[in-house]
Amino acid sequence: MPPPLLAAARGRPKAEPRLRKPAESATEAPPSPPAEAAQAEAAQAPEPPQSRVRPHVPVHADAVSRLSGEDALIHRAFAPLASHEGAFGLTDDAAAIAVPPSHEVVATTDTLVAGVHFFPDDPPEAIARKALRVNLSDLAAKAADPLGFLLSIALPEGIRPEWLDAFARGLADDSKKYRIPLFGGDTVRTTGPMVISITALGTAKPGEVVRRAGAQPGDWVMVTGTIGDAALGLMLRKHLGLKALNRLGTRDKAHLTDRYLLPQPRLRLAAALRLHATAAMDISDGLAGDLAKLCAVSGVGARIETALLPLSPAAAAAIETDPRLLERVVSGGDDYEILMTVPSDDLDAFVSAATRAGVAVTAIGEITAGPGLPVLYGPDGPMKLKQMSFSHF
Amino acid sequence: MPPPLLAAARGRPKAEPRLRKPAESATEAPPSPPAEAAQAEAAQAPEPPQSRVRPHVPVHADAVSRLSGEDALIHRAFAPLASHEGAFGLTDDAAAIAVPPSHEVVATTDTLVAGVHFFPDDPPEAIARKALRVNLSDLAAKAADPLGFLLSIALPEGIRPEWLDAFARGLADDSKKYRIPLFGGDTVRTTGPMVISITALGTAKPGEVVRRAGAQPGDWVMVTGTIGDAALGLMLRKHLGLKALNRLGTRDKAHLTDRYLLPQPRLRLAAALRLHATAAMDISDGLAGDLAKLCAVSGVGARIETALLPLSPAAAAAIETDPRLLERVVSGGDDYEILMTVPSDDLDAFVSAATRAGVAVTAIGEITAGPGLPVLYGPDGPMKLKQMSFSHF
Repeated sequence: MPPPLLAAARGRPKAEPRLRKPAESATEAPPSPPAEAAQAEAAQAPEPPQSRVRPHVPVHADAVSRLSGEDALIHRAFAPLASHEGAFGLTDDAAAIAVPPSHEVVATTDTLVAGVHFFPDDPPEAIARKALRVNLSDLAAKAADPLGFLLSIALPEGIRPEWLDAFARGLADDSKKYRIPLFGGDTVRTTGPMVISITALGTAKPGEVVRRAGAQPGDWVMVTGTIGDAALGLMLRKHLGLKALNRLGTRDKAHLTDRYLLPQPRLRLAAALRLHATAAMDISDGLAGDLAKLCAVSGVGARIETALLPLSPAAAAAIETDPRLLERVVSGGDDYEILMTVPSDDLDAFVSAATRAGVAVTAIGEITAGPGLPVLYGPDGPMKLKQMSFSHF
Repeated sequence: MPPPLLAAARGRPKAEPRLRKPAESATEAPPSPPAEAAQAEAAQAPEPPQSRVRPHVPVHADAVSRLSGEDALIHRAFAPLASHEGAFGLTDDAAAIAVPPSHEVVATTDTLVAGVHFFPDDPPEAIARKALRVNLSDLAAKAADPLGFLLSIALPEGIRPEWLDAFARGLADDSKKYRIPLFGGDTVRTTGPMVISITALGTAKPGEVVRRAGAQPGDWVMVTGTIGDAALGLMLRKHLGLKALNRLGTRDKAHLTDRYLLPQPRLRLAAALRLHATAAMDISDGLAGDLAKLCAVSGVGARIETALLPLSPAAAAAIETDPRLLERVVSGGDDYEILMTVPSDDLDAFVSAATRAGVAVTAIGEITAGPGLPVLYGPDGPMKLKQMSFSHF
C-alpha cells in the first residue's frame, strides 16, 4: 500500500491537489478563451501577483554528478569553465545572461568534424582551442567583444577520459585567455566521427557590427597577420611530399603546422575596425573565395596584388622554391585572419590604431566598381585559380 | 606585367598603401604600448572619430549563391528562415540581435544524432522540427520567450537535395509557428551519421528565469501534458513486439509514435511559471531521472504517486494490459513536458493560469525534505527502477 500522498504532516493546508485531466491529444491545445469565472477572478485580484522565483541557492553539484555518466562527465570536465553566474554551474536547462546596457548580442556558430576539419590524432587541447577560436575569429571580424559560448560535442565510442580531460583543459585555457566563459552545452554519443559545435555570443553597440556588405569602390583591401600558412601547414600535415615544403627547416615546418592547428583570433582589432572599416570578415575558406563573398554582398569587385601579400618567412621560402604554391596560399583555408576594407582617408588612422592594438595589418589591393569576382594579379598577370576557395559541397 | 595597382584613376589621393611587415610569428603579438607619436596624434584629434560602419545595403544573395555549393545550399534552403534583419540573410559571419530593454538572454543548446536521437528514415520535416522543439522545450521550462536560433548541421554523403528541402520546410514551419527566426548556422560534411545541433536564444527579465534549483519541501510536484507516450512510441517504432503495444488500435499507435517524433514545447506556460513555480525543467531523459536532477540541485527529495500520473488513453490501455510498462513510462525519455514545483498556496492560481494558457497541468506528488532520490509509489509500493533515466554514458 502506498503511503498517503501529500499528507498535511507539516501543517500545510489539507487542500486536495487539483488534478487536471491530461490533454486528449499530445498536440498543444490552442489557448482557450478565458473562462468567465477566471476573468472575474482576475478582475478582483487585490494586488499584482509576485514572482515566486527564488534567489540563487548553492548547487549540490556532487549530488548531480552521481546521477549519470553524462552528468558526471559534464561536472568533471566542463563545469569549471562555467564561471559565469548565469551558467548555473551547468546544472540547468539554459543559461541566463545579462547583456551590457545599450549593447546588442552578436551570435555565430561553427562546427568541426574529425577527419574533415581536424585530424582525430591531433592533440585534444589543440582541437578544443581551434573549435573555440574559429568562432572567436568570427566575433573578431565583426568587431564584437566576447560574451560567452555554448559547446555541443558528439563523442564516438572509445574516447578515453584522459582525452576528454585534455580537451577540457585546452578549452579552459582559451576560455580564460579570451575571457569567454562557458554558458552551457550538450554531450551526446555518435557512431561516427567526433563533431564539435560551438556557438559564440558577443556584444557590440547597435550599428557597430562591421558587416561583409559595406565595401566601396576605392577602399583599400587589407588583411591581418600572414596569409597561407595554415594551408601549407595542412599540406605538411598530410605528408603531401612536396619538395618545396619538405626542404624547409624544422622551425619553418613547425610554424606552418602550428598555424594550421591553432588560429589566432584578432579580437584586439575590434576598436580599429569599428572606427575605420567599411566591411570585414574572417578568412576561413581562403583569401580569394572569401574576398569573392565580401565583394558579392557589397556589390563591388576587387583587384589584389599578390606581391603585396603578407607572407611568413616559411611561406615565402616555400613559394620561392615552388611558385605553384602561391595558388594554395590564396585559395587554401584556415587562415582565420581578418579581411577588411578601409577608405583611403582612413588608412593612416587605421594602421595606427591596429598597430597600437598589436595586430599587424597589410594593404593588398583595392575595391573596384562592380559587382564582379576579384582579380588577383600574380607575377604572370591575372591568376587563373582552379577554385576560389575550399567548399565541402 | 600586372597593371599598376591602386592607381588614382578615380581622383583618389595618391597615397601609397602603408604596407605593414607581416608579424614575425603567427601568435598574436601582445599589445604594444602606444607610440608617443600616436599618443600625441590622438591628443590632437580635433573631434571624436565617427564609426565608418555603413547602414544596411541590399544583399546580392544571388551573387553569393554562385560562389560555392555550400553557399548555394544555405541560400536556397535556409536563408528564407532568416527573417530577422540582424541575420543579414545568412550572408555574414554573425548575427546582430537587439535584446528587448530590461531583458536578459536565455541560451540553450541541444544536439540530435541520426541513429541515436532519431531514425535516419524518419521524415526530414519531423527531424527538423524535433531538433528545434527540443530546444524550445528548454526555453519553455525556463519561462523564457523565443528570440531566435542558430543551426549547425553535419551532413553525410548522399543526402539528396529533396531531403534538405523537406528538412528546411519543416524547420520553416516551426520557425514561423513559434516565432523564432534563424540567426545563423554552419553546414559541414561528415563521414558519419547526420548531427544536428541547435542553439536557441530566448529572453526573460532578470530574475524571471525559473531554475531547477528552488524546489522547497511541501511544494507540489507537477507536470504538463501526458507522460510516457514518447517512450512507448519509441518501443513501437523499434518493433519491440510487446503484445500490450501491438494490441493497441491504429489511432493509439499513431498517437504514441507521433509523440516520439514531435515534442510539444509548452511555451505558453511561461507567464504561469514565472508567477508560481519555484523550480522547473523539461523532461527529456525521463520523469524519474529528471526529477532526481531537480531534487539534487534543490537539495530536496520527492514522493510521487504513479496513480496520479497523467496518461494518454493509449498509454493507460497499454499499462493496463502489461503493468511492467509503467517502469518505461516513468524512466523513458523524450517526453519534453515540463516538470515543475509549485507552493501549496499557489496551486489554485497556477492551475487557473495554466488553464487559461491552454496547457494541461497535473499534480503528481510533493517535494520532501532532503536531499535524496525521489521515491515513486506504484501499485505495489515504492518502485525499484532498473535505471532512473536514459543516459548515453
